[in-house]
Amino acid sequence: MKDKYKGRVTLPVELDFYEETLELSKRWGADAIRDSDGTDLDAQLKLIPGVKVYSKYFVARGDNEFALNHMEEAQQIFVMSEYITAYDDTLDIEFRKGFLDKQIVPNYDHDSKRYWQVYDRTTNEELDTDQWELDKENDIVSIKNTIAFHEYTVNFLAYMVWDPTQMYNYITNNWTDREREVPFDVRGPKANKHVKEKLRDWLEKNPETDVVRFTTFFYHFTLFFNDQEKEKFVDWFGYGSSVSPLALDAFELEYGYTLKAEDFIQAGYYNSTFKNPSQKYLDYIDFQQRFVCKEAKELVDLVHEYGKEAIMFLGDNWIGTEPYGKYFESIGIDGVVGSVGGGATLRLIADIPHVKYTEGRFLPYFFPDTFYEGNDPTIELMENWVSSRRAILRNPLNRIGYGGYPSLAYKFPKFVDRVEEITDEFRGIIDNVENNKPYAKHTVAILNSWGKIRTWQAFMVAHALYYQETYSYFGLLESLSGLDVDVKFISFDDIINHGIDEDIDVIINAGDAHTAFSGDDAWNNPTLVKSIRSWVHDGHGFIGIGEPSAYEKGGRFFQLADILGIDQELGFKLSTDKYHNLPMPSHFITQDMKSKFDYGERVRNIYALSSQTEVIADDKNSISIAANAYGKGRGVYLMGMKYSHENTRILKRSIYYSLQQEDEFNKVHSSNLETELNVYPQSESVALVNNTSEAQKTLVYDFNGNYTCIELKENELKWGHYNVETGSFSF
Amino acid sequence: MKDKYKGRVTLPVELDFYEETLELSKRWGADAIRDSDGTDLDAQLKLIPGVKVYSKYFVARGDNEFALNHMEEAQQIFVMSEYITAYDDTLDIEFRKGFLDKQIVPNYDHDSKRYWQVYDRTTNEELDTDQWELDKENDIVSIKNTIAFHEYTVNFLAYMVWDPTQMYNYITNNWTDREREVPFDVRGPKANKHVKEKLRDWLEKNPETDVVRFTTFFYHFTLFFNDQEKEKFVDWFGYGSSVSPLALDAFELEYGYTLKAEDFIQAGYYNSTFKNPSQKYLDYIDFQQRFVCKEAKELVDLVHEYGKEAIMFLGDNWIGTEPYGKYFESIGIDGVVGSVGGGATLRLIADIPHVKYTEGRFLPYFFPDTFYEGNDPTIELMENWVSSRRAILRNPLNRIGYGGYPSLAYKFPKFVDRVEEITDEFRGIIDNVENNKPYAKHTVAILNSWGKIRTWQAFMVAHALYYQETYSYFGLLESLSGLDVDVKFISFDDIINHGIDEDIDVIINAGDAHTAFSGDDAWNNPTLVKSIRSWVHDGHGFIGIGEPSAYEKGGRFFQLADILGIDQELGFKLSTDKYHNLPMPSHFITQDMKSKFDYGERVRNIYALSSQTEVIADDKNSISIAANAYGKGRGVYLMGMKYSHENTRILKRSIYYSLQQEDEFNKVHSSNLETELNVYPQSESVALVNNTSEAQKTLVYDFNGNYTCIELKENELKWGHYNVETGSFSF
Repeated sequence: MKDKYKGRVTLPVELDFYEETLELSKRWGADAIRDSDGTDLDAQLKLIPGVKVYSKYFVARGDNEFALNHMEEAQQIFVMSEYITAYDDTLDIEFRKGFLDKQIVPNYDHDSKRYWQVYDRTTNEELDTDQWELDKENDIVSIKNTIAFHEYTVNFLAYMVWDPTQMYNYITNNWTDREREVPFDVRGPKANKHVKEKLRDWLEKNPETDVVRFTTFFYHFTLFFNDQEKEKFVDWFGYGSSVSPLALDAFELEYGYTLKAEDFIQAGYYNSTFKNPSQKYLDYIDFQQRFVCKEAKELVDLVHEYGKEAIMFLGDNWIGTEPYGKYFESIGIDGVVGSVGGGATLRLIADIPHVKYTEGRFLPYFFPDTFYEGNDPTIELMENWVSSRRAILRNPLNRIGYGGYPSLAYKFPKFVDRVEEITDEFRGIIDNVENNKPYAKHTVAILNSWGKIRTWQAFMVAHALYYQETYSYFGLLESLSGLDVDVKFISFDDIINHGIDEDIDVIINAGDAHTAFSGDDAWNNPTLVKSIRSWVHDGHGFIGIGEPSAYEKGGRFFQLADILGIDQELGFKLSTDKYHNLPMPSHFITQDMKSKFDYGERVRNIYALSSQTEVIADDKNSISIAANAYGKGRGVYLMGMKYSHENTRILKRSIYYSLQQEDEFNKVHSSNLETELNVYPQSESVALVNNTSEAQKTLVYDFNGNYTCIELKENELKWGHYNVETGSFSF
Repeated sequence: MKDKYKGRVTLPVELDFYEETLELSKRWGADAIRDSDGTDLDAQLKLIPGVKVYSKYFVARGDNEFALNHMEEAQQIFVMSEYITAYDDTLDIEFRKGFLDKQIVPNYDHDSKRYWQVYDRTTNEELDTDQWELDKENDIVSIKNTIAFHEYTVNFLAYMVWDPTQMYNYITNNWTDREREVPFDVRGPKANKHVKEKLRDWLEKNPETDVVRFTTFFYHFTLFFNDQEKEKFVDWFGYGSSVSPLALDAFELEYGYTLKAEDFIQAGYYNSTFKNPSQKYLDYIDFQQRFVCKEAKELVDLVHEYGKEAIMFLGDNWIGTEPYGKYFESIGIDGVVGSVGGGATLRLIADIPHVKYTEGRFLPYFFPDTFYEGNDPTIELMENWVSSRRAILRNPLNRIGYGGYPSLAYKFPKFVDRVEEITDEFRGIIDNVENNKPYAKHTVAILNSWGKIRTWQAFMVAHALYYQETYSYFGLLESLSGLDVDVKFISFDDIINHGIDEDIDVIINAGDAHTAFSGDDAWNNPTLVKSIRSWVHDGHGFIGIGEPSAYEKGGRFFQLADILGIDQELGFKLSTDKYHNLPMPSHFITQDMKSKFDYGERVRNIYALSSQTEVIADDKNSISIAANAYGKGRGVYLMGMKYSHENTRILKRSIYYSLQQEDEFNKVHSSNLETELNVYPQSESVALVNNTSEAQKTLVYDFNGNYTCIELKENELKWGHYNVETGSFSF
């Protein structure tokens, strides 16, 4: 029986750990081994029969022999100096102040008057180039005719002479003995030629490698440090480090207009994904994606030519390869591997189209910060597994893996046992789930300015990191990742240009006012507003979270206030009396709540528009849950969606309620909100999962609304049979 | 001794209560009696020697004999219908829905195509007048060529056939036996003539009246009810009920452009004082003020002609008379009387220029809701007195009074005793304080879009009413009303056009983003920004409360972030790492705090700009108090200023800190924050006041920083002597 389950697991390896690796590999059913940044593969290990060898491969870094000899092809970035106040009519700006000299070096090779800019940030206007001079000796820009008490900044082009990931590892792990790796730009003709020659050479020399794991291709997401060697700026989506005079010239040739430093710097916003993208930035993204995908394809083709597989790491130098973008398919990559922080980041990897397989690296890393005497690493292991498992049951990864030093994990026998159980459970799920679409009564679409390209990536600043300003929205993705619905990500333009797809049942708009996730001036478009109104009226659902459809116009702040039944008071309507704000004693949406709705961050001054609005919950005079009938559909307002099992249930109920389908709720459903139910029609199976580390009891409702009481052990996943004829389940 | 204190008190009277009134009048030292809406003066009472008689006088209401015969001169208002969604290409709007028929009656006498408008609120564009027809029979506007799922509203001109104050009293007190009073418009030629003739006639017939108390002149602040007879809209500053075709025509003739319904309706904002005023609205205010003041002057002249005094009630029909406006002085009114809800509303009355005297009506009203068996009305009495007394010590009213039925108060002997003490204490203060400017080390200016005209009236929707959205800012005024500083109210235009007055030490900008109190696009003016920066740099203070100087531009949300050392994260800068947010262990500003800073309503995501920022307090990852050195001055940020004694102390310390005058703080100061100290150089006296109902001990610091320990009984006001030569105090 056991043999059947072998495989689907990648093991990190280290030198001088051969026998133990064999043991772990057998117990966990590993069918692949891999090296990582900092470790190398033991020659012996490469020869285990049936076990594939993954080798990491850096394209645009880790080759200082080339890089140091071609510094003119080093990667570049536009950055902005600090704000400096003028006290007189001249001003000197030490523009490098606050940057890490080891990473950011001004580009003095190209014409500063062409690529650099000086801004008066008090007027937010650019100064004429003859108003300032660059002093390269002293790294100073001297400005004349300044206005006293205006603030000025310098936008400058710089070489990025330290790869951000290596820099992070170097500084964090105190690698003072290693060389700082200079990243180079494949737009440079020499670099372009070099990376291809070097890969071919490497492929020749590494016949035992089965899978080349690109980490990743060319341009790192924007990440730079300050002069204290601490992170100064991080944007996982940022195209900042992909610029160069070559790129700008090529862009201008194709698009017929010039991109300036400010198009990238945006007074310090640097094209944050939280800001509605400018058309210029969208053009640039498209331009770079095409270049990156074309170049990446050449490397992947080369790997294939040598009979190997090519996979990429989702992160680091991934800019331009967006897996949900238009050109990703063209790369021809075989697989994607990424880090799993929970359900949403799992789905981010698992849902990637056009690849043969996806692989998730689970937590915890086998590092000393978790694997030390007295600590129990199985706690983090199980938390990570249980939160990810919800998502796996909706759409599984094809493979899982762990990272770090296996010798550390090996010292914790209970941990090794648990991973053995997890890998078995994972393979068990795959048997039932892979290529077997789970039953979903509804399709839910997340609507924002980015849409599909940022699938499962909304509300993210840096991959899987917590931000005070975002967790109340990111919880929506985490909840949805394991909920029995199909999920799509659509943009305002999708609706404006193509209408709302037939398969969508419920649209969710979530975010802070003025961000790209709420939509800001996208809501100034009557076509958008009208389309959603008519569609909801026709029997669909609209769920608004936080400050949905916020754009002050026509006396409304929320442009879909009429659907939601609520609006936000900005102060301008204080003279209008607000009645109807008393919550109802009970409601369908909050029926399973055990405690007060814990939405996350508070949104102020939400009030009901009329007595028709169903006020469901409130907090300190602001409505936190409301619903409103709109034709045959409904609007539902939620103040926030911090992730929790309770809130996941509120979301599930909101979906049904928005569709006026309360009567359908107790079908294909597990009553206890600590549990979830998934049905696989093709394999005629049912998975009932306990998402807690305590035993749970629940009523499981079948397609007919008949229920059975089921008990589940802590963290248990229980499989049952689905009788397709009768619509009933048996466990 | 007692006799000296007689006077300065106005007593309300009622019929058949003669002897008791005499007794109260003697004990409280009343030197004036008055009637009110609902009561008349007893003939006997008018003859008490030495006691003046105030008679209420309604100019534009309370005369239905005229009004009902001249309905074409009834007052008018522009109002907006509900939002109605079109489902097809035609739409009927029952525009009267939601209004009280007894108050709001459509004006069908004038051309609807000229005065009415129909708006598509989804595009926020006006429809061509040929796109709609008015059906007067059925009170319906029928629109053609509508767009399905757009929302539409009708702006219509209506007669306001019920005076709002009488309506309020009528509905609240269930006066079903009285006539509903129709207010008429003195712009109407017949009404204009009538009010003057009638006043002359009334003056002839009321020789025993000493003081005519106008309640008030012509136009009521905007107040209308809904179809449930509940308040629908209230704006104490609203010019809504002052419109008419006559006024619009006169305006157009003078200004050369036409005002439309939408200029008053603003998609339902109705020119809220929380919204930056449009130039059109400012023009209209000026236009009406000139008219109102001119007409009011004629009436006041008439009163003077008869040897009587004329005073006005600050409220009800006060629109156009703004006592801090440009034309108020020209009315020639002798006094203003208003209701006192606390220190700020007291100063609102007491600070009024160009009058011989001001009078405040204190709480509680002698009404059955307070004066019932088992309740102790002295509690509210003392609270109101103690909070008002702080302000009286800075700038006293000339007179105080009470309202309601004295027979009710008479039943509570303890209450009568306390009022006797209060009236004595009040006269005692006056003796020391009147025409004797109290010592103020600093002048503080409140900066917003309105400036002087809304002196002590910022953050108000309806006079002295609490609003969830405003108390965190209104507390600033309440704190300042009794603090030993001089207070000015200035506008952005004042600074832009005339610079910052010499006498100002500290500027405070307080309010929610985008409101007229924070300033919104006023901060898009570099002259303003630069002026304040240079002035602070020169050694002045800037205090920002809530969302000060908020206007997103140049990478800042708060345009004075550089002074304040903090900014608000809108989401666009999440990629920039925020350090320096840890509060300091102790700080000058919070030195007297006994508990956590209770600012009121929370402002989200306030972060420090640099390590130079002094983070003084925070709450849930948002900074609540910060300070920042800026040249010789400082910026201080406070999240809110809910009124409390603790927060008043924080404000006082912030003023000193912003001026870098920490060393000066323990001079002319009472250490216990439950007490306050005022010094009167001209009378060489000192007032030390206990603002609590418990005994307090405090250190009183003189001009040299020497202190004495003083004990105060509950609510005590202790007078001391100020030795001008030595700068010391003795009690």
